[in-house]
Amino acid sequence: MRIRNVKNKEEILNNSKFLVHNYKNNCGNWNKIFKNNNPIYIEIGMGKGKFIIENAKKYKNINFIGIERFDSILAKALPKIDEDINNLLIIRMNALEIDEVFNKEIDRIYLNFSDPWPKVRHHNRRLTSEIFLNKYDKIFKSKNEIYLRTDNTDLYRYSIETLSNHKYSLCEVTFDLHKDKEDLITTEYEDKFSKKNMPIYALTAIKEDV
Amino acid sequence: MRIRNVKNKEEILNNSKFLVHNYKNNCGNWNKIFKNNNPIYIEIGMGKGKFIIENAKKYKNINFIGIERFDSILAKALPKIDEDINNLLIIRMNALEIDEVFNKEIDRIYLNFSDPWPKVRHHNRRLTSEIFLNKYDKIFKSKNEIYLRTDNTDLYRYSIETLSNHKYSLCEVTFDLHKDKEDLITTEYEDKFSKKNMPIYALTAIKEDV
Repeated sequence: MRIRNVKNKEEILNNSKFLVHNYKNNCGNWNKIFKNNNPIYIEIGMGKGKFIIENAKKYKNINFIGIERFDSILAKALPKIDEDINNLLIIRMNALEIDEVFNKEIDRIYLNFSDPWPKVRHHNRRLTSEIFLNKYDKIFKSKNEIYLRTDNTDLYRYSIETLSNHKYSLCEVTFDLHKDKEDLITTEYEDKFSKKNMPIYALTAIKEDV
Repeated sequence: MRIRNVKNKEEILNNSKFLVHNYKNNCGNWNKIFKNNNPIYIEIGMGKGKFIIENAKKYKNINFIGIERFDSILAKALPKIDEDINNLLIIRMNALEIDEVFNKEIDRIYLNFSDPWPKVRHHNRRLTSEIFLNKYDKIFKSKNEIYLRTDNTDLYRYSIETLSNHKYSLCEVTFDLHKDKEDLITTEYEDKFSKKNMPIYALTAIKEDV
């Protein structure tokens, strides 16, 4: 995604009550931060936030954490969050830090339209590379659940391989998500893409503790 | 596939030296039948035989067994086999019998353009259903290797799910086999399909003994 600069982004980021600043201090204690024992779902690469904000509004008994590394994108997402939402927090970080931020406390990861990193030498940067799957193993509570959506054939094929190699069972495998499912909560990117009638790939990957 | 009757099919079947009649008697002893210890690859649903015959000609150090349940199709396949081929045998049987015919002696299974059985109540008949995957576990030597090709999106999606649920690692996942690979040995069906520029799905599923 080309990132357009947002002029007052520092002001927006500094004043948002949803953005967690010293996030590594909360490692292992996120349920305390939310003040409940509800499941915690995270979206890595939340972009402009539509998906996770709508989820937080709809599923009050789930705690959501959105992760994004770009200030300018966060500056667009943060103002969209209604002040009275109390089951959503946002972290500005690089996904590589994820196992320093969470410890056996996450119930589900959403990967929506992640960067496909097309060059072979960059495949390790894909959010479903072995590097990341090993990190996710450390942050899931007991059952691993990854929900993936993408329009990129190569990233999708790659993810089927890496996830199955990492002992995940794949289900809800679809090559045309919007044809197969109704009433979905979507991302901004997905809406644009879907309007052009271009199919979206999706799958759910599950791994139970052995 | 619509099956056209072949008039002299009984004569063809009775006179072929490649067709094994009392095949269950060989269970556990197929290497003795081939008189060598080479790996054994089978194709379930060999159709008119192009794929397995060309493989047998090209890979002399592999033993091939083609399986097909329809007489009329076999009557077209059998005459195509050169008399001097000694690493290919054919069995006329229903695939459900497979674990009574082989016992821990198979190295690879090819599933090429298997019947997609589109109706949900028939999904168990698919050659990648749990029923068949359990049978295959009994016939593979040590490492399970399934090579699958299909033009059917629904069968392909289904197979990704059942294979990953059955602890297979998936690799060589492609949604357009003929674009991704050259010099492939193909089936008759595949050639017709491919000429129309319709993409073919493929994958390799591997499971090592735990």
